[in-house]
Amino acid sequence: MSIRVLAFDGDDTLWHNESRFHLTQTALRDLLRRHVPGADVDSHLFEVEMRNLSLYGYGVKAFTLSMLETAIELTAARIPAADLRVILSWGKQMLSEPTELLDGVEASLKDVSGRYSLLLITKGDLFDQESKLARSGLADMFSGVEILSDKTIDSYRSVLNRRGIRPEEFVMVGNSLRSDVAPVVALGARAVHIPYHVTWGHEQVPEESLPRTGWSRISSIAELGALLESIDQPAIAHRQSSSD
Amino acid sequence: MSIRVLAFDGDDTLWHNESRFHLTQTALRDLLRRHVPGADVDSHLFEVEMRNLSLYGYGVKAFTLSMLETAIELTAARIPAADLRVILSWGKQMLSEPTELLDGVEASLKDVSGRYSLLLITKGDLFDQESKLARSGLADMFSGVEILSDKTIDSYRSVLNRRGIRPEEFVMVGNSLRSDVAPVVALGARAVHIPYHVTWGHEQVPEESLPRTGWSRISSIAELGALLESIDQPAIAHRQSSSD
Repeated sequence: MSIRVLAFDGDDTLWHNESRFHLTQTALRDLLRRHVPGADVDSHLFEVEMRNLSLYGYGVKAFTLSMLETAIELTAARIPAADLRVILSWGKQMLSEPTELLDGVEASLKDVSGRYSLLLITKGDLFDQESKLARSGLADMFSGVEILSDKTIDSYRSVLNRRGIRPEEFVMVGNSLRSDVAPVVALGARAVHIPYHVTWGHEQVPEESLPRTGWSRISSIAELGALLESIDQPAIAHRQSSSD
Repeated sequence: MSIRVLAFDGDDTLWHNESRFHLTQTALRDLLRRHVPGADVDSHLFEVEMRNLSLYGYGVKAFTLSMLETAIELTAARIPAADLRVILSWGKQMLSEPTELLDGVEASLKDVSGRYSLLLITKGDLFDQESKLARSGLADMFSGVEILSDKTIDSYRSVLNRRGIRPEEFVMVGNSLRSDVAPVVALGARAVHIPYHVTWGHEQVPEESLPRTGWSRISSIAELGALLESIDQPAIAHRQSSSD
């Protein structure tokens, strides 16, 4: 079955995201260690984020609230409000920074947009994701945009059903094995993994837990066009070869 | 043209929402007046919310962040972190409370669901809205759900286009003149206004700014079925009457 719809994740696939969370988290570590020198800020923050995930979901607002909670907890509420105001301002800065595209994104999207119908499928905060897409300059390349609260087998299935896409004609491209590869392969669709140089702990899954087939890995989006040519089997060519 | 699709707003149309924000805001007022007795907490909070709207969008997480900012500003950062932790906990409480339906909602939806295709069109935080819908027990009544970052003429137009709905066959039901009535009427579709007993300042528009036709007002969702019967003109009856 030939590929008809090519879907892209946004964060850390088309534009930088996790690296900004890392930068902010480094600043939080420095700030809190002034109050609690030996504190393990990273693991405490991760614990707070996981505890809050079912209430807050993903995104910068959730991250900011979890940073504030971590700061208050780790300092036993001794942190001055002025420092918490600084943390609030980091969140606003993350929300207002320009969307910085990864290398090669524009050229690759232009290249594949002639051959496939392009979808953007991101997860996280609706308002923030729409704003990032608008600032990315890429919105016109996509025939549709789906912002999901989480990327699961069910949420992908519902996108495909709603849009009348069969799994065999769908390919998802993204940086997360957990969100962009595993659920898509489980549905019988295909995925392309393009690792980003940092991955949030929550997105990490052991590679052994994934099926061996149904997905490929490339190191840069620039390699996408060639990969798709190699895995795509046009319906006509396929019929010819099977009648040979 | 007869009505085919009936769309409902969620917050303060199907389930209580603004009243909870009001309760929390009352608690904030009490908390901050212990530090700054004469402070005009409500107007300061509204100012902060409006300033943050383009960064945070709508919803409980945005509200919590704006409450924290208001608390720090109004007390000139003298508020103890323990009080800010209390504010954080209010936000979590709002996000985890059960979805409390307005009177008559279930019966009315059942009544109209036999005659029209039902959509839910809400705005706000994606994660929070999905969670509220899941907890409402109403999800199965709707043939589709749209969670928008804002309700504007453009966002309604794009929903109608995407779903192949003509304005003449679409009726929107909601509590906000600004979000549920004005943009819908501007598109040539119809709207039904059901006021809620409290309205957030940002949702208020002068009624004189709305067209006189294209929308109706009822005082309770229980009156919806009868109203729709009175305004709905089945295509056949319409053709008959025009050939008379």
